[in-house]
Amino acid sequence: MRHFISVNQLSEEEIVNILKTADWYCNTGYKLKQQLFVANLFFEPSTRTKTSFIVAQRKMGMEVLDFHTETSSIQKGESLYDTAKTFESIGANLLTIRHPSDCWFDNHLKDISIPIINAGAGKTEHPTQCLLDLLTIYQEFQTFKDLKIVIAGDIKHSRVAQSNAYALKALGANVFLSAAPEFEDNSLDFPYLSMDDAVNTCDVVMLLRIQHERHDEKSRTMNDYLNNYGLSKEREKQMKNHAIILHPAPINRGVEIDSSLVECERSRIFQQMKNGVYIRMAIMTNILQEWGIMNETSIEECETAIISK
Amino acid sequence: MRHFISVNQLSEEEIVNILKTADWYCNTGYKLKQQLFVANLFFEPSTRTKTSFIVAQRKMGMEVLDFHTETSSIQKGESLYDTAKTFESIGANLLTIRHPSDCWFDNHLKDISIPIINAGAGKTEHPTQCLLDLLTIYQEFQTFKDLKIVIAGDIKHSRVAQSNAYALKALGANVFLSAAPEFEDNSLDFPYLSMDDAVNTCDVVMLLRIQHERHDEKSRTMNDYLNNYGLSKEREKQMKNHAIILHPAPINRGVEIDSSLVECERSRIFQQMKNGVYIRMAIMTNILQEWGIMNETSIEECETAIISK
Amino acid sequence: MRHFISVNQLSEEEIVNILKTADWYCNTGYKLKQQLFVANLFFEPSTRTKTSFIVAQRKMGMEVLDFHTETSSIQKGESLYDTAKTFESIGANLLTIRHPSDCWFDNHLKDISIPIINAGAGKTEHPTQCLLDLLTIYQEFQTFKDLKIVIAGDIKHSRVAQSNAYALKALGANVFLSAAPEFEDNSLDFPYLSMDDAVNTCDVVMLLRIQHERHDEKSRTMNDYLNNYGLSKEREKQMKNHAIILHPAPINRGVEIDSSLVECERSRIFQQMKNGVYIRMAIMTNILQEWGIMNETSIEECETAIISK
Repeated sequence: MRHFISVNQLSEEEIVNILKTADWYCNTGYKLKQQLFVANLFFEPSTRTKTSFIVAQRKMGMEVLDFHTETSSIQKGESLYDTAKTFESIGANLLTIRHPSDCWFDNHLKDISIPIINAGAGKTEHPTQCLLDLLTIYQEFQTFKDLKIVIAGDIKHSRVAQSNAYALKALGANVFLSAAPEFEDNSLDFPYLSMDDAVNTCDVVMLLRIQHERHDEKSRTMNDYLNNYGLSKEREKQMKNHAIILHPAPINRGVEIDSSLVECERSRIFQQMKNGVYIRMAIMTNILQEWGIMNETSIEECETAIISK
Repeated sequence: MRHFISVNQLSEEEIVNILKTADWYCNTGYKLKQQLFVANLFFEPSTRTKTSFIVAQRKMGMEVLDFHTETSSIQKGESLYDTAKTFESIGANLLTIRHPSDCWFDNHLKDISIPIINAGAGKTEHPTQCLLDLLTIYQEFQTFKDLKIVIAGDIKHSRVAQSNAYALKALGANVFLSAAPEFEDNSLDFPYLSMDDAVNTCDVVMLLRIQHERHDEKSRTMNDYLNNYGLSKEREKQMKNHAIILHPAPINRGVEIDSSLVECERSRIFQQMKNGVYIRMAIMTNILQEWGIMNETSIEECETAIISK
Repeated sequence: MRHFISVNQLSEEEIVNILKTADWYCNTGYKLKQQLFVANLFFEPSTRTKTSFIVAQRKMGMEVLDFHTETSSIQKGESLYDTAKTFESIGANLLTIRHPSDCWFDNHLKDISIPIINAGAGKTEHPTQCLLDLLTIYQEFQTFKDLKIVIAGDIKHSRVAQSNAYALKALGANVFLSAAPEFEDNSLDFPYLSMDDAVNTCDVVMLLRIQHERHDEKSRTMNDYLNNYGLSKEREKQMKNHAIILHPAPINRGVEIDSSLVECERSRIFQQMKNGVYIRMAIMTNILQEWGIMNETSIEECETAIISK
């Protein structure tokens, strides 16, 4: 792939290959022998995604260039294209971009002659999050075929709900949605379940974050949210023995999930964060190989910290 | 030690061992062979302490993860525990935390399964600052027994006054306090001296910063402060031949100390900053060894810059 | 040189040596064997210059210390001298400084005992920008003798116009200026040309940025600017066959230059950014050698990324 913008670009086989590469990275350390520079251009707040990319990049031995919107030429009105071209000129070999616009990756950016990875686009796309969710499910069940998976929460404002739903369907899963009426998105062609029905029937409960910062619902609503639509302690008890819980974090404890469940036995929430690093290593490897920037001779095994696995 | 939160945790012997390790680091370079990640979670402004930690970490060969409160999920209401757990999941092997709360290290954080080092807690604790002060005195006198040491300045709002006073007493020093009336803290069980008496009798004059940013005293008071309570040129002349001056910086030149004394012969102020790096290397070594993350086989000697010693 | 503050410090021979070193860096990779720390103290917004320094530093294998004015002791009123001295004490071996003051490098800073490189001083000096402009011209023509060079745009508010003009003249070029009346600076002893005459006669057209953020001209003026004083499509067609276009960026597309010309065949704008990295490597090499911090035994050849050249 030239740039990695959406999970929709990937065939089922390509997705599975990326998951297998990520799995391999969980157990093996290697570093690039070359000095490669990557610039992380984040135009929106992010701890998790940005740090995850940085850890992935440093594990691969890349040089990481940081970017602060508040002290950049963006303040002087520079366009995203000119900023990207600037980093390319200064020596970046790879860009990751997160931007509040839904469609920052327009035709113009295709002229950038280094690979670009989408690290989040408005409320539409967050493909590395989607793939780390897939990895977490794949590690658990080794397949997606016939799994029952519910995506529950603020479907309307989530950037992962839609791409997850379509990717999981393409991989053979049965996908359901569950949401409070104000969070439903009826443009998506998947059946809705009540949260009570969802926990009884599904193998995977993928919770979404209630995005206070993207809309105006009063916190009054939030108080009742857990009981009506969230994963309460009672509902967790109704889940199948082998069923697991996912959440992209940051978590609103006591809103979409009871605080005591965040680290319960069937929670894979912190495992997802771990997987985020390996999936990003896999995606960067994939794209750098396709560009001919990285190949088998450009890497060497290295000692990894046992404790970090 | 599991986490390093307070100097009170340490026995006299443990303190001296840390000082000796720090001293060893002044003259020897080594790096970890493993790739270890450390995240510095600073929720308060800091140049000196944070940069000192970073230099210490890079000298030891660690990968440093930065954290910006203004672009983090803290903005989305994430708790300190969830932030710490996130960094652990993403791959951090060690955390340093500075937070404006006096007691951020509560019972909850004990569940984090990587070591935590306190880099400053509200106005109560700043244990690495305390230890670097101790190292500076130890380098000078090779002992603390029977030294006369005055801690002078804004005792009430200082996060180092109290822990320094108790640690120095435990190590055998005679500790005195000196402060303007509004800066006295009578909960501390140490005798107060006037600044004139202090300079005449003490081997070490530890000045504290007048923390404009933590209280509302008018700068009018500050104009008289130097003459009444600070280290003026006249008072410096009254000091014993071998006596030294310490200050944690940043310095209010002309307030707690005359500007011309900042780099005078008996000032150890910039030596303290140098020592800060080595003391932090010693503390990180100590804690990583106790956790079994680092041992003799995990390090290698390396060439160090002669000019940086 | 002890500190690198201005191009005026350099003889013609020294300039040419720096350009040759930079050219050598374009084709060769090496790293320092020692661990050297550099601190980039930027008190003004900058993406391009700061990132360029960082890439240069990492290519040379230095450890880079970042500095954020918004979270630093500058907020507590610390002076530039004390900040610089602090970084020296903590272990920095080299400082780069950008500061909004025209004359931040005063006599006081001369006491800092590590080398300082000027990365921008108010609207007066930006010597590394000047040298990268020189390098770009030198790569094209292998000489400066008798070249006709016009510096066009906001002469009055530009920090590169004056030093470029004098350096180019010293190197043997014929220098002209071109500006809208409100942007003329008549303290400079160079002839003014209209933009139409300039494009017809010059070998190099050095455009300057219209610095919206430094003055109050209305954007209404900006709309007419391109046609009256900027490099329009029509004017580009009048340029000599071999003539080239330079611009320090960030670019106001459609103001000082037509957007379609930014990446045209005779534009060297993104080449200038590439050169910025190599010129900064050359300057740092030069200054570290003069201080005896770096010599032939302290470097080793290394594999560089072919794609980054």
